[in-house]
Order: sequence, then C-alpha cells, then structure tokens
Amino acid sequence: MDDFFRVKSVEEARRILVSNWECAKGTLALPLAHEEIALASALGRVLASDVVSSLDIPPHPRSTVDGYAVLARDTHGATDALPAMLQVVEDVVMGAMPKKALCTGQAFGIPTGGMLPLGADACVMVEHTEMLDGGTVLIGRPAAAGDNVVQQGEDIKANSGVLAAGKVLTPFDLGVLAALGYARVSVVRKPKVAVISTGDEIVPPGESPQMGQIRDINSYSLSGALAAFGAEPSILGIAKDTHDSLRSLVSSGLSSYDVVILSGGSSVGAHDVAVKVLDELGPPGVLVHGVAVKPGKPVILALCQGKPVFGLPGHPVSSLVGLDLFARYMLNYMVALSAGNAGILPGLAAAQETYVTARRGRNVSSAPGREDHVRVKLVEKDGYLVAEPVLGKSGLLSTMARSDGEIVIPLYSEGLIEGSAVKVRLPRF
Amino acid sequence: MDDFFRVKSVEEARRILVSNWECAKGTLALPLAHEEIALASALGRVLASDVVSSLDIPPHPRSTVDGYAVLARDTHGATDALPAMLQVVEDVVMGAMPKKALCTGQAFGIPTGGMLPLGADACVMVEHTEMLDGGTVLIGRPAAAGDNVVQQGEDIKANSGVLAAGKVLTPFDLGVLAALGYARVSVVRKPKVAVISTGDEIVPPGESPQMGQIRDINSYSLSGALAAFGAEPSILGIAKDTHDSLRSLVSSGLSSYDVVILSGGSSVGAHDVAVKVLDELGPPGVLVHGVAVKPGKPVILALCQGKPVFGLPGHPVSSLVGLDLFARYMLNYMVALSAGNAGILPGLAAAQETYVTARRGRNVSSAPGREDHVRVKLVEKDGYLVAEPVLGKSGLLSTMARSDGEIVIPLYSEGLIEGSAVKVRLPRF
Repeated sequence: MDDFFRVKSVEEARRILVSNWECAKGTLALPLAHEEIALASALGRVLASDVVSSLDIPPHPRSTVDGYAVLARDTHGATDALPAMLQVVEDVVMGAMPKKALCTGQAFGIPTGGMLPLGADACVMVEHTEMLDGGTVLIGRPAAAGDNVVQQGEDIKANSGVLAAGKVLTPFDLGVLAALGYARVSVVRKPKVAVISTGDEIVPPGESPQMGQIRDINSYSLSGALAAFGAEPSILGIAKDTHDSLRSLVSSGLSSYDVVILSGGSSVGAHDVAVKVLDELGPPGVLVHGVAVKPGKPVILALCQGKPVFGLPGHPVSSLVGLDLFARYMLNYMVALSAGNAGILPGLAAAQETYVTARRGRNVSSAPGREDHVRVKLVEKDGYLVAEPVLGKSGLLSTMARSDGEIVIPLYSEGLIEGSAVKVRLPRF
Repeated sequence: MDDFFRVKSVEEARRILVSNWECAKGTLALPLAHEEIALASALGRVLASDVVSSLDIPPHPRSTVDGYAVLARDTHGATDALPAMLQVVEDVVMGAMPKKALCTGQAFGIPTGGMLPLGADACVMVEHTEMLDGGTVLIGRPAAAGDNVVQQGEDIKANSGVLAAGKVLTPFDLGVLAALGYARVSVVRKPKVAVISTGDEIVPPGESPQMGQIRDINSYSLSGALAAFGAEPSILGIAKDTHDSLRSLVSSGLSSYDVVILSGGSSVGAHDVAVKVLDELGPPGVLVHGVAVKPGKPVILALCQGKPVFGLPGHPVSSLVGLDLFARYMLNYMVALSAGNAGILPGLAAAQETYVTARRGRNVSSAPGREDHVRVKLVEKDGYLVAEPVLGKSGLLSTMARSDGEIVIPLYSEGLIEGSAVKVRLPRF
C-alpha cells in the first residue's frame, strides 16, 4: 500500500499506464476497429488510414475568369488602341471538354471554371475584350502564359499524400475527400467510455438533495468533456462508497466499454474502497495512486481486465483537469494506435489544442516538485494578451467559469515572473 | 439589375439582410422553437432561457479535508507540544446531516465533503491531530475560522443568475445545470440549413468526373462547417445552371429548411440564372449582390418566402469565407433572437471565436475599399506568436490546409506593417 502513495510525475504516471496497457493488450489487437461511414457524417471523426490522391486536382487547366482562352503570345503588345484580333472558333461549355484544340490566331469563349482547350495557355477577362461581328474578338491587353488559369494538379497532385491517418476531419478535409471521390470514408470507431460518480452524498440531478447531500455534477461535466474530445460517453450512475456498490458498477463498465472513469470519493475511506475494488478487478489493478499535480493530486490510474480505469477527484474542476491530463492522453493513444501510428498523434478532437503565447500578469509561485495548473483569464493590454491568474479554490465551479484557459508551471520550477512570455492552453470546449 | 452590382461593405450587407428578414418575420414569431432535451445530450446546444440558481451551492458548509470539525477558538495557541484537547462526540457521515450541534470543547470527525455541524467554523486535517483513547483528540495546530471549509453558497448563491439565455453549453455548464437540478434543459432548436451545389460541371463524389467535370466539394465542406457551428445541415444535391433545375432545388429547400445555401455558378451566366430564380422566389428576392470582401466578393444575399438564402462563390475557400461572414452571422442572429436576445449574442458554437494577438511576419498590402481576409500561419519566434501570410490563390484547397487562421484588413486600410500587433482569428473547426 505504501508504494501507492509515492506520488508520481504526470509523465511518469502516463508512461506507467500506457506501458502496462500495451503489455496487457499484446501486439496483435487493434484497440479500436475501423468503420466506414458516409462522408457527410464524418466531421470530427478520426481518419483510419492515409489518403493518397488518385488524380490531379483540378484534373485539367481551368479558367478563373469569364472571358477568352488564348495563346499568350498571340496577345503580345496588344493595347486598347492596337488590339490583337483573334478568331472565336468555339465557346467552351461548363462541364464539357472543348471539341477542338486552339491554334494560333484563335480564341475560345470560356466561363469561370471552364476547361482550357488544348493549345491555350492563358485566359483574358471579358472586360478587356470587345466582340466584333463575324466571330472576331479584340483583345486590349497582353496576357502572359498562365494568366487567369489554375493548372492541372496545381491544387493536389496525383499520387501525393493528402491526409494522414489519425487526422481529425475538419470541414475542409471533408471537401478534400469529396474532391477525391470518397463518398464514404474509413474512420476509427469512437472509444466508448463509462462514467461513474461515487460518494454516499451524491444524488442524481433529478432528485432533491437532503441536508448533507449534493447533486451529481461530475457525471455531466465529464461526459460533456469526453464528447467534446470525440469519445462516446455513457453515464452509468452513482456508486455508494461501499465495496459491493462500486465493484458492481465498475464491473459493468469493464464489460461493455473501452475505458472506465470514476470520480468522487475524496475521503480516505472512499479512496481505500476504490483502491481495493480496482486491485481485485486487476491484475494489475491500481498502477498509480497520487500524481504531483495541482489540482488533481489524488488521481488513481488502474488497469483492470486490460482496460484503463481512472479514479478522479470529486471536485468538479480537479476532475476535469485529471480527465484532461490522463484519460484524454490514454484515449488519444488508443485512437492513434488504431490509426496505425505507434506514437502519440492528435487523435481526438481536443487533441488539437490551441496554445497562445501571452504575457503573464502577476507573479505566480509554485512548490517545486509539483506541476501546477493555474487557471487564467486573458486580457488585452497595449495590443498584447496578458494572462491574469484567476484566484479561487480548485473545487469551485465559479473558478472555471471565469477563466479562459490554463498555464502549466512545470515540476521543477518555483513559479513564473510577471511580464515574461507564457503559453496558455485554451480548451476546445 | 445595375443596383445589384453596387458592391456593399460586409456590415452594410449584413444589416440589409437582417432588417429585411426582421420585416418579413413580423414581431410575434419565434424564429426557432425551444425544445426540452436530456442534460446528458445538451453539449454545444444553445440555452433557451436564463438559469437562476434556486439554491445555495454548496447547500451547507462542507469540509475540504479528512479530519475534525472544530470551533476555531478552541484551538487557539495549540502546538504539537501543547495541543488542544477536544472531546469527539460524533463522526459526520457522508451524505447525512450531523445529529448534534458542536459545543465548545468538542470536535466532530469529518470526511472530505462532509457537512459541518452547527457550531463548528473550521476543520483541522487529520495529519495535525492525534486520537487518544476515550474519545479525546489532540489538535496540534491552531485553526482560523473558515479554515478547510467551503461556505454555504460560496460557489453559487441562491437567486443569483448563473447562465444567460443564448449561452452555448460547455461541459462545465452541464455540471452547473446538474448541480441545480436540471435533469432536462430547454434549448433552442438547431437551425435547419439546406445545402445546394450548383454548376453544370459538378458531379457527386461517388461518380467519376468526365473531362471538364469536377466533383462536388462545397456540399461537404459547407455542411461540415455548418455542423461545427451548431446548425443542422442537409445536402440537397447538385443543381444545373438552368432556371428550372435551380428553381426546383431552391424551392424544396425553402419548403423544409430555415436557411438555404447555394454555392458555385461563378460565371456571369450562372449568376444571372441564380439572381433570376431568387428574385422570382421573393419578394424581396435578391437584396445584395457583391460585397467588398476578398475572397468572397460575388456573394448573393437574398430573402425568399421569408427565409434567408445565400449564394456563395464556387471556390472552396471563398465559399467557406462567405459562409462564415454572412450565413453564420444570420444563423447566430436567429438563434440569439430565439433565446430572447434582440442583439447579436454568441448563439452557435463557433460564435465563440478565439482571437489571438500575434505579431505580423511580413507587410501585407490591401486595396482600400475592400475588406481583405488573409490566411496566416502562426509560428513562434522569440517567445511570441508571429502570423505569416500563406500565399496562394483563394480557390486552392491547399491554401486553407496550410493556414492556422486569418487576419482581417479593414475596408479603409492600405495594409498592415511588419512587426505590429494583429488579431488572428482561429477557426473552431
């Protein structure tokens, strides 16, 4: 038991969990299967394999203006006073291939997006032309080769890698996949996560708490964060701080989900119950008990029946920090591995973290040997962002509501000095 | 017709659309109805009405440690050598109200999160105490009133406004609503948006394009962006650049959706067809044709049968910029109004834009009289973010893929100077 209370660093704790999980999993299994879904519903999903373009985009040179396709050298020296005279032999039709090729002295009428005829190398805007009777057009400006044309493959070249496995699909990516002909796309199945609140004092939001009781907050905030990360959370309910109640809910979580999240039970007695249950459901059971991070220190990381289990603190803010630091890391690892990447890649949506650099507004002190996560508010001063620490107890909902993001003070630092640059992590939810 | 080509500023264009829509709507109708949904599925939804706390949170003073509840003045002057001796008369049970009140000279055993007995005003950590036989505890440190206690209502006070109508619900907000007893929550219905691609050259992603044809990109990128905004997009299909084909698809969009989005048809001929169809389906039909913004200039804003219709350019990047500038603005306006806010509030998810301040990496020139949206990449240099413009034609997919966000150069500016501070808008997708 004593060993459990030897507090680990965040990095150490993650490494212990991942390496034990890798061992338990073996080398063959894909943690999360691939599934093929309609492109229109793939927003935010994780691409299962690399996408290589099978064609040039655009597939042919296209005009970017309404006007005339020409051979550039036929227009050299042209001015309004002394225009080039070209014979219009065809009008290019949208969506169709020009029937003829263009020869010197000729012009083709062409709409924006129209395909350039063979032999043409530039387009002239209709505003710089004048149509005469008898199929002759006057060109009042010289064009250089490539003017007002998007070249074949200028956007995406055939056989080039376009999107990497593990990419979280953005609206833009959906457009790229459509262009390449993917009506359906293969993505990594969402990790299913069981969410359990624990504590004799906790009642569901639909019930009226008696004196000494409090409603379940964490099932909802943690599920929301998990959904925002791209996981598929299910709220399993509230476990009492007894061995049987907790064991029964955790067991049902292990039987149907990829990951189990507990929160609450901040007292020593409740902790002891959780440790005992997770050890019984192992091996290996509890791997880490206590991490050198504030808030979030009393976190439990365990592996039961091959599945990661996270015991998070009961305070709403601390539990969200713990979820973010450990569960999201593990989920990303599982997703990245399922997409064929052995290392950690941006796997789930929130992994695309936004860091901004701001100046710090006030000195922040920290105990060496502990990683401090300090909530900050971003304020603009003299054209720069300044990160002001939001003061308040870590368990308070209002601390989180008033902050824009967090700064991290590393393990072996005694704090940060006012006015220096600091990275602020903005949550994606 | 000429009037349509008088190019408007972004602000003017938005104002014209919103004021015409307000007129057509009348004063009584709620643009989007409210619906009650389960709290667990409310992430990212828009709160329909203000939430006022009906109770104090916490509802009673709670201990933040495992230890003893005491009367602070009973511990004054206590040291390890000369501890205060208190009689332990009760152990507080989690989730239950203490049976007795605490009198001077007494202590109550209390777990983290336990309810303070009446009469107690502080808690002492178990680490600073020693239990003797016979129900006596030695307190080795003095406590001040309030030590290790969260006071009643310290987090949220009864009758205080907690969340405002129009708020996009975050994981944290779900936790707050749970704490207040909302098992279900009333939200604004998602706006339903019809997405139509137009152009004789466009084929669906599942088909092989013939020479001169190209696959439909915008239906997918625009739907993805709309879903990321919190709207509910439906892809209606591809209209040919003929009057009948376009009129039939737009009509079916108007009959079942709140907003219709067209994209494509960048040639003058295709534009003329779109303008004619939208005018027929009015009144008022086309309101704005051309906006002083790059990319995105040839945008059409229309109102048909009381519903906003947006004609966006065919280039993928330009269409996303147009969607963001005009359709999202209108959708936010509708959502905010439905939540009871007459002004523009953050309505949909992406309205919570992230702006970061960066230095600019290179001079950017702009034509006065035009609002330029320049794609930039954020790079860190000397501890500061620098925004480097990404060069490339606006129609290219690759321009967007390589950028992190955009800077806006206002209408009456000739550009921005290297090294000065600039706001960079980061997309939420």
